Amino acid sequence: MTYCLGMLVQGGLIMMADTRTNAGVDNISSYRKLRVFGGDGKRLIVVCSAGNLSTSQGALQRMMRGVPNPETLEMDSWQSVPSIYEAARAAGRAIRLARDGNDSLDQSAGVNFDASLLVGGAIDGEAHRLFLVYSEGNVIECGPDTPYLQIGEAKYGKPMLDRALRFETTPEEALKIGLISFDATMRANLAVGLPIDILVSRAGGARIDVQHRIEPSDAYFRDLSQRWADAMIAAVDGVPLPPYAGPA
Amino acid sequence: MTYCLGMLVQGGLIMMADTRTNAGVDNISSYRKLRVFGGDGKRLIVVCSAGNLSTSQGALQRMMRGVPNPETLEMDSWQSVPSIYEAARAAGRAIRLARDGNDSLDQSAGVNFDASLLVGGAIDGEAHRLFLVYSEGNVIECGPDTPYLQIGEAKYGKPMLDRALRFETTPEEALKIGLISFDATMRANLAVGLPIDILVSRAGGARIDVQHRIEPSDAYFRDLSQRWADAMIAAVDGVPLPPYAGPA
Repeated sequence: MTYCLGMLVQGGLIMMADTRTNAGVDNISSYRKLRVFGGDGKRLIVVCSAGNLSTSQGALQRMMRGVPNPETLEMDSWQSVPSIYEAARAAGRAIRLARDGNDSLDQSAGVNFDASLLVGGAIDGEAHRLFLVYSEGNVIECGPDTPYLQIGEAKYGKPMLDRALRFETTPEEALKIGLISFDATMRANLAVGLPIDILVSRAGGARIDVQHRIEPSDAYFRDLSQRWADAMIAAVDGVPLPPYAGPA
Repeated sequence: MTYCLGMLVQGGLIMMADTRTNAGVDNISSYRKLRVFGGDGKRLIVVCSAGNLSTSQGALQRMMRGVPNPETLEMDSWQSVPSIYEAARAAGRAIRLARDGNDSLDQSAGVNFDASLLVGGAIDGEAHRLFLVYSEGNVIECGPDTPYLQIGEAKYGKPMLDRALRFETTPEEALKIGLISFDATMRANLAVGLPIDILVSRAGGARIDVQHRIEPSDAYFRDLSQRWADAMIAAVDGVPLPPYAGPA
């Protein structure tokens, strides 16, 4: 399992991914799921991946080398795509190539080779954009009404995003809300775990403003986790007891 | 979709279910998913159901009439079973009969006829017990280490159960925590909705101590929902901003 979160707020793009990969609970490893291409101020593409590791790695490999674009008859790669939209669409084709290749190897048809991606960033002066690439290869874009996209184990960490995150939220505040969302997810699903990779790119540039790996020893994240746990208990205590009594 | 929650704490049994049933988002209805058999102080069986409505209704119908018990060669029904454990096991056989019957009607094999149940209560002086009946017919029992069981849309409402609910929690407090769990679930999944049916049976009796349907106009639940929303925002505000900065 995996949890990846992309947030696109007025002030910039925030992307986050855990690093735990598992094939059953008895086979757990750490793999980087947040990858950065560029960051020189002209081209920044940030990719988070969830799902079958062979498929997502296969798709990223293909995007390094180039995948055919049936509309332009050119080869699209991270280095060549003219926009984040085209990066996401090319990554969708790469996912399909990798997934279909894996499916053809699986004679039992019993393995799920699905994988999905978040692709965000900015190219050649465009505003930051953020897309979710589904396993089928189609893409959807993040918009200001719901300024985030999730892949992987999305449900445990969704409630606080819906309550606290707005398009007007600052990138620092969004990063904090995202870490609370990760904390909730990691407490509920052992297949999502530290370290967490985070990246922030402020609006108006294709630069990496924050890039950090949160390790288990991270003091800020431990404090956040404890404060959140205490606040949850206090919030429960603050609600009066129910008035319901007696059989209907 | 559905969300049902059973909690078995030191002080008694609390069971809760929403009432929304949907076949697609364009076909939503209200159906009672929490049902009570007995409650006279000698026999109390409370059943919550999730999954395919035809299968769960078929199973409950069969349990009214009796389903064969291959170990005793008798017919087990809600009226005849000698314990909650046997009620849950018989309900498991009833689920299988109903599900297999539906499967045999579906020539396309494209419909998911799975359904699951929570079965709790007390019979003839036994302590309250609580079971989850899977669609395959097997059952698991709730224990004090994790004093709750969920069926249906379980993830959104799980974090606050894990944080706040203990075996020592009073039934009133457990009911409150359960309602917070329902509030979180209903905000995230439109297929879980009011009214919510609740039932409390205190330890030491097979009686219904609280039975109530929470309608959309319920003042306590609206207050709980607003207090919780405010507390979540305050909790986010109470966490300091992250100290991470600059490229690694």
